[in-house]
Amino acid sequence: MIQVKEALSIIAENSCKMPVIKIKVSKSLGFILAKTIYSPMDMPPFRQSAMDGYAFLHCELQQFDVVSTSKAGDFSNSVFKKNEAIRIFTGAFVPDNLDTVVMQEHTTVKNKTVEITKMPVRFANVRNKGEQIKEAELVLEKNTQITPAAIGFLACLGITEIKVYSKPKVAIIATGNELVKAGKKLPMGKIYESNSVMLKVALKELSIKKIKIFRIKDTLNATKSVLKKCLSTYDLVLVSGGISVGDYDFVKEALEFNSVTQLFYTVNQKPGKPLYFGKKAQTIVFALPGNPASTLTSFYVYVVAALNKMMGFQPVHLTEIKRKINVDFENTTGKALFLKAFYDDKNVTILESQSSAMLNTFAVANGFVYLAYDEVNIQKNQEVIVIPIH
Amino acid sequence: MIQVKEALSIIAENSCKMPVIKIKVSKSLGFILAKTIYSPMDMPPFRQSAMDGYAFLHCELQQFDVVSTSKAGDFSNSVFKKNEAIRIFTGAFVPDNLDTVVMQEHTTVKNKTVEITKMPVRFANVRNKGEQIKEAELVLEKNTQITPAAIGFLACLGITEIKVYSKPKVAIIATGNELVKAGKKLPMGKIYESNSVMLKVALKELSIKKIKIFRIKDTLNATKSVLKKCLSTYDLVLVSGGISVGDYDFVKEALEFNSVTQLFYTVNQKPGKPLYFGKKAQTIVFALPGNPASTLTSFYVYVVAALNKMMGFQPVHLTEIKRKINVDFENTTGKALFLKAFYDDKNVTILESQSSAMLNTFAVANGFVYLAYDEVNIQKNQEVIVIPIH
Repeated sequence: MIQVKEALSIIAENSCKMPVIKIKVSKSLGFILAKTIYSPMDMPPFRQSAMDGYAFLHCELQQFDVVSTSKAGDFSNSVFKKNEAIRIFTGAFVPDNLDTVVMQEHTTVKNKTVEITKMPVRFANVRNKGEQIKEAELVLEKNTQITPAAIGFLACLGITEIKVYSKPKVAIIATGNELVKAGKKLPMGKIYESNSVMLKVALKELSIKKIKIFRIKDTLNATKSVLKKCLSTYDLVLVSGGISVGDYDFVKEALEFNSVTQLFYTVNQKPGKPLYFGKKAQTIVFALPGNPASTLTSFYVYVVAALNKMMGFQPVHLTEIKRKINVDFENTTGKALFLKAFYDDKNVTILESQSSAMLNTFAVANGFVYLAYDEVNIQKNQEVIVIPIH
Repeated sequence: MIQVKEALSIIAENSCKMPVIKIKVSKSLGFILAKTIYSPMDMPPFRQSAMDGYAFLHCELQQFDVVSTSKAGDFSNSVFKKNEAIRIFTGAFVPDNLDTVVMQEHTTVKNKTVEITKMPVRFANVRNKGEQIKEAELVLEKNTQITPAAIGFLACLGITEIKVYSKPKVAIIATGNELVKAGKKLPMGKIYESNSVMLKVALKELSIKKIKIFRIKDTLNATKSVLKKCLSTYDLVLVSGGISVGDYDFVKEALEFNSVTQLFYTVNQKPGKPLYFGKKAQTIVFALPGNPASTLTSFYVYVVAALNKMMGFQPVHLTEIKRKINVDFENTTGKALFLKAFYDDKNVTILESQSSAMLNTFAVANGFVYLAYDEVNIQKNQEVIVIPIH
């Protein structure tokens, strides 16, 4: 049995970054950039008006003849006389021999003549070529997570494809003769299967799309053969249920049979002690404890840590924030605790029911209070570590 | 021109909750529950072993004959003699006349006899029927957002469908003769279109799926007719660009022509002053300023507020957290400011470039520092309002 921190560092060491792929910018939300991007062009690509108004050559004159118009998208690079101005709109091309734009609110216009009532300084309201970014300048650094703003930035530079770390293909194996799919009649002795559905949506929340659920009976042969298939085709295998010491738990034997190297089994924690982590080639395997709340806790703490590493997130370690706890708390278990909790901007409240079989509390929690195995006496209002889960 | 808070309250008043729909639990991640759910069954549905071990009737005996086995999923309700025990596994049915389970680590087994080396108290390791939740008890309250844990909870109770607020259909209208789609050659005077792509992924990030982009030229007729179509088919219409006072901005005229009621136009803020909000029947319309950073700021502040109301989120108002600012800051504009910023658990840093035409900074920001129009002098380390954006 190992401690939480050791388990997390074994996971970080053994989870490998996914292969780099090229994808369309419009499909790249949430991916991590695998290659630094430099600008292919100047932005703006030409001298551009920042206002609706009139463009002119700054001089001693206050009054100009309006001789033409430049709308956004137009391009006409005529040469103008000193006493000539053009009507211009935001984003429009500013001809080479004009240097200043006066906003229309500072003019009076009669017939074809504009009088400037408040003279701007020379070069005012003209965005220079490359003012935002110049060709070859840094756009986004490697390891940046792609946000909507990043997608907008790339699109405005005409970039259509980028290199990112791909997302893993995940197999979920749900074991247990007692499991019945929701919607069917429940015979005595059976329960509805919830772990695989729950794990699938938790993965979807991380924008992982290639997920397949395998439901199998508790037999050694079924477990061996589905594991064999999954190990050759998937990057991550999650086995839900069936890795305790009971005679009818075949998962461990099936893992050994398939030459999965055990990297740890059992962690000094509550909930989720019987947690297994192993590896075969590049595929990593978690066997999660069967109780729904233990499964989901292990997912948010350990599986997410592995996925972060695989998908290229940096830093890999879990987000930890500090909040003031709402009660005195004594941890006499000698184990690390992950307590379902609700936190706000200042405080954290430990929620009432912490049973590992119950999801009631989990459904309204937004994080865990994490107490290390050797944190025994916690005082009310003391700052504790909170791991956000949404 | 109105203030930020007034604009937000007009939006909250005028955005209507979407119709309630019935959806599959497995597809309900992120939706808001429109009807409180009560449990259709007891959970567990029978007396269940919480351990791998041996079930027996608690008495003065220490040693029992092992006469049968109950695995998870089995159901056999035999009557046992006082000196008889059964091999039992976690989650398995506990026969009616047995009352206690001893964990296997506290036994020694020889042939068909189990000796209890550490006697548990009566009723130990047996989960009672309905211990987690009883039939007709509260499962999830109306207005709860559906998380993976909530989905697991519903699934384990055999619930397959729930009632939620539907998500809006959104039309994005990108106006501008200057816009060229990324991937094509950029003629002089033109720029790459980025706002519609960016808005689309920002909507996708909120799990909105029905989004259509309409790209139109700056003509009154094109604007009128596409608006007409969108107003009759979509719940939310976002117009990107084209609502300043310039002669070539037809959007406002096209909105009036289509009988959209203007609820406000221009907000005392930077960036994003020329922001328009209107309504026709149940469809709401935002015309967003054309500069990419202004567009996205308006989206995160105002459009998200409207969407929250429509999708049933409570409270509707934006998430505001408080962080210590990294610099002295003077707001002499008389306007409310939304400053692109990066915050951590304690502090917030105002990022360098705040130009409304630039997305460089936005791509690495995770929030705004919000300063009201009358907040003039901000001292370093003072707590300020931060609006998270991811």
